[in-house]
Amino acid sequence: MSLPLSLQWQEDELIMLDQTRLPIEEVMLRPKTVEAVFEAIKMLRVRGAPAIGIAGAYGLVIAMQHKRNLTWPEFLLEAERQADYLNSARPTAVNLSWALKRMIGKLNDQHDSETAFQVLLEEAKVIHEEDRKLCRGIGKNGLSLIKEGMGILTHCNAGGLATSELGTALAPMYLAHEKGISFRVYSDETRPLLQGSRLTAWELQRSGIDVTTICDNMAAVMMQEGKIDMVIVGTDRVAANGDVANKIGTFNVAILANYFKIPFYVACPASTIDLITPTGAEIVIEERAPEEVTAFGERRTAPIDIKVRNPAFDVTPANLVTGIITEQTILRAPYAESIRQTYGNA
Amino acid sequence: MSLPLSLQWQEDELIMLDQTRLPIEEVMLRPKTVEAVFEAIKMLRVRGAPAIGIAGAYGLVIAMQHKRNLTWPEFLLEAERQADYLNSARPTAVNLSWALKRMIGKLNDQHDSETAFQVLLEEAKVIHEEDRKLCRGIGKNGLSLIKEGMGILTHCNAGGLATSELGTALAPMYLAHEKGISFRVYSDETRPLLQGSRLTAWELQRSGIDVTTICDNMAAVMMQEGKIDMVIVGTDRVAANGDVANKIGTFNVAILANYFKIPFYVACPASTIDLITPTGAEIVIEERAPEEVTAFGERRTAPIDIKVRNPAFDVTPANLVTGIITEQTILRAPYAESIRQTYGNA
Repeated sequence: MSLPLSLQWQEDELIMLDQTRLPIEEVMLRPKTVEAVFEAIKMLRVRGAPAIGIAGAYGLVIAMQHKRNLTWPEFLLEAERQADYLNSARPTAVNLSWALKRMIGKLNDQHDSETAFQVLLEEAKVIHEEDRKLCRGIGKNGLSLIKEGMGILTHCNAGGLATSELGTALAPMYLAHEKGISFRVYSDETRPLLQGSRLTAWELQRSGIDVTTICDNMAAVMMQEGKIDMVIVGTDRVAANGDVANKIGTFNVAILANYFKIPFYVACPASTIDLITPTGAEIVIEERAPEEVTAFGERRTAPIDIKVRNPAFDVTPANLVTGIITEQTILRAPYAESIRQTYGNA
Repeated sequence: MSLPLSLQWQEDELIMLDQTRLPIEEVMLRPKTVEAVFEAIKMLRVRGAPAIGIAGAYGLVIAMQHKRNLTWPEFLLEAERQADYLNSARPTAVNLSWALKRMIGKLNDQHDSETAFQVLLEEAKVIHEEDRKLCRGIGKNGLSLIKEGMGILTHCNAGGLATSELGTALAPMYLAHEKGISFRVYSDETRPLLQGSRLTAWELQRSGIDVTTICDNMAAVMMQEGKIDMVIVGTDRVAANGDVANKIGTFNVAILANYFKIPFYVACPASTIDLITPTGAEIVIEERAPEEVTAFGERRTAPIDIKVRNPAFDVTPANLVTGIITEQTILRAPYAESIRQTYGNA
């Protein structure tokens, strides 16, 4: 058993796991053109904010690989054009535009196409390595929470597949497993898109960790049976007061954990903490297509023209959060204070 | 718009809605043989405890329809044989064996095949009509709870499709709709078998009631948004202390309602209250096949050999239940007392 990697850079080649084929088959992609990387990002073959950023960075390297004979002004213009193109694959993915801006920024001091290309390649590897370290930092801080024999519930996929290696919510579990600590994970299937059963269950099983898939609505019974000692989830954005936006259903789990007095932890890199968003109330929740709820593949599971709500995320109020595990520390309540103290001057 | 009926007896013919074809198409079955009724019960074309009992009773009528020329002892023997056969279609369905026992019991005083057949037909109609009245009684008692403009959450299908006409949890909604009260219903899709989106959404939409389908894990957000003023669910069994066994996910909803201080009601005929089961802890929960969770039709949605939990029911503790709506009254806490006072001498 070994940890499957969402992305690798090997001998001038990007190797990506096609996540749309999971859990049925493990297909590795080796995109040779920027168009192939664009397609992989757009079609969610690579997904998860950090993984998309890394893919975008390597995508720009691939785009410029055969442009090294351009004059320097041509090279710079072309790099900017290709970065814009890659960014349009998922225009709302913050990590993608962040990584591409950072790559282009590195060209500021350059005057020579060949050197500039090497700088781009180096920067992509740095972005990749930084994410690996971030996740490892989160893992190390969360590791202290995992005790022998524990049952841990997680929701959606905040795992290695979404990042470079260890993930966020799953990072402490991977490190605990490496240390030989034995524990069980319960993975919510996470309707409507089933990231839990398709991805989290897959990567934990593939890594040799004891994982059980449940429907989202079985969490209360698992807690009642005493199977769950802790919840760890990821997050898309933490407000300055500690409110946590994450995949739809996270708030449900937090309320259940609160009812059963089970600790509820959130894991994320510090960059996910958004100091300029005061509370969760300011976070706009995307409403997605009804077909995600009313059909399964080609199969319709609800009446024609039925009304549907399909919010993609929910916001868990800070008072339900036991701790926020970052690469530096585990933040505790009151979050407005601990967040400001730790990250206020960043 | 009119209420779709799960079962009708018209001109010596049983007409059943094939619930396995919902929500895609409305197919009416007219079984001419006891084997066809057996198949419909076994294959869940008719489902829901009361509806299965009624189908079983009419099934016995159909079985004996062409046996009226038998001698009386032969007729009686044949009726018992056919009742056993029908009962084996779903051996654990209490209402099925209850209805068939009741039918056979009616033959005690008989001595003539033709008269006995008429008695069977009459008794099937009585069982059918009794259920109609029960549901109407539940509906009348629950009606007082539904106010203009309310939002009501329900889980699974405790509707007309499961019974003769109005259902249990949905009965108050049908009567409120008849009275011109306007309200909105949110229907949990109810994983893994999606009775909510396939059946509840269908029958409410078909009746002209404003219904919105959500995934089970969206209930907390709907409550947070102020969309839900009340929860009404059905139940498979109520213990003598008021603990409520119902479709998996009901307990989750009850905890959420409790967190948001939203009333949580259970609707059922008094026969569902099981005085000899002291508490919910004594109710054995059926664990169903993992494939219900890991596949969707032919499509696999989880890794091969993944561990799965799939309890079919959960038990909501009485302290989370605001009231139990029966055909006589709305029972209130303390339930051990109110149940004993109302039904203790039954």
